Amino acid sequence: MAEIKAADVKALRERTGAAMMDCKSALSEADGDMEKAIEVLRVKGQASAAKRAGRSTGEGTVASYIHANGRLGVLVEIQCETDFVARNDDFLAFAQDIALHIAAANPQYVSADEIPEEAEAAERTVFEQKAAEDGKPENVREKIVEGQLAKWRKEVALLDQVHVNADKHDGKTIEELRAEAAANTGENIVIARFARFAVGEE
Amino acid sequence: MAEIKAADVKALRERTGAAMMDCKSALSEADGDMEKAIEVLRVKGQASAAKRAGRSTGEGTVASYIHANGRLGVLVEIQCETDFVARNDDFLAFAQDIALHIAAANPQYVSADEIPEEAEAAERTVFEQKAAEDGKPENVREKIVEGQLAKWRKEVALLDQVHVNADKHDGKTIEELRAEAAANTGENIVIARFARFAVGEE
Repeated sequence: MAEIKAADVKALRERTGAAMMDCKSALSEADGDMEKAIEVLRVKGQASAAKRAGRSTGEGTVASYIHANGRLGVLVEIQCETDFVARNDDFLAFAQDIALHIAAANPQYVSADEIPEEAEAAERTVFEQKAAEDGKPENVREKIVEGQLAKWRKEVALLDQVHVNADKHDGKTIEELRAEAAANTGENIVIARFARFAVGEE
Repeated sequence: MAEIKAADVKALRERTGAAMMDCKSALSEADGDMEKAIEVLRVKGQASAAKRAGRSTGEGTVASYIHANGRLGVLVEIQCETDFVARNDDFLAFAQDIALHIAAANPQYVSADEIPEEAEAAERTVFEQKAAEDGKPENVREKIVEGQLAKWRKEVALLDQVHVNADKHDGKTIEELRAEAAANTGENIVIARFARFAVGEE
């Protein structure tokens, strides 16, 4: 068995964000091969993420963000498993970052699963009328409309949106950032609900 | 015509919160009689409040309040007529005070008019069953249930609630405080909507 160097453990941790102990055991399992160790962590990560996703989230935080002009505000509830994580600075920073994103990106639902049937049906009608007006042949309309609907579903769903601060977050979606926060804290993290009020909008 | 003393104008202003000029002209109209002047102001106030209530509110502010433990948050949109009032300190303090009240008092609707029929029907059923279980005679049950429903409607409606800080606000309801803010600013003020999230509550 290859000797596991502390520098490799550190490098693996930096590349994956996994815990030191997990990095060390992944390197052991991969016989010191960095790329293999990453694969080991990835598979284990998915397994533990799946395990985490089932765990109940009774703790958490409510974060708010008010835009400087005071005409726009966001409230978001982010849940985790323990009071310990709920008070963790990284977790609170994550919650703040999500609130800021919601203010800027104006999602309508947390996830695409929550889109009500009527809302989707209304959107479908608009796309169908547009396709007809554009003179698209009937046999391709259905496909065009389905494509537009799929795009729309992603646009209105918070978890599918790319964080507005793409520089800071490397073009990751909110779901990817949520999964990272879950991996970093070792807890199931759920964006439970949000409200976004702009003055005079409703 | 009685001479109008500056001290009386000041006293009237302190008792009613009306503008100096209005206090002076009310005292003139009441021939210097303080109680009559209050009545004059009250009638005029109602007239101008009615006029104000019809005016459109396209400006305003979104205020938030997060309870110290971070497990409870409120977002509230308060509308007014002009950007000038929207940036006014008293207006912003009013918005903050309403957000704090919502956190503590947990209203379900802005006004009783917004209570959905199904919610009221469900509540009625509960009260009716309770009245039957308590063995109340059938002929008085309806009256008991109506009384309980009227009480419930007031409890869940923000505007009908007495502000939780009764010391500061002298036991006034949120609607009374709203009307005061409207009178003080001279603009129509509307509590448009609110959200209140407590971790794990939903």
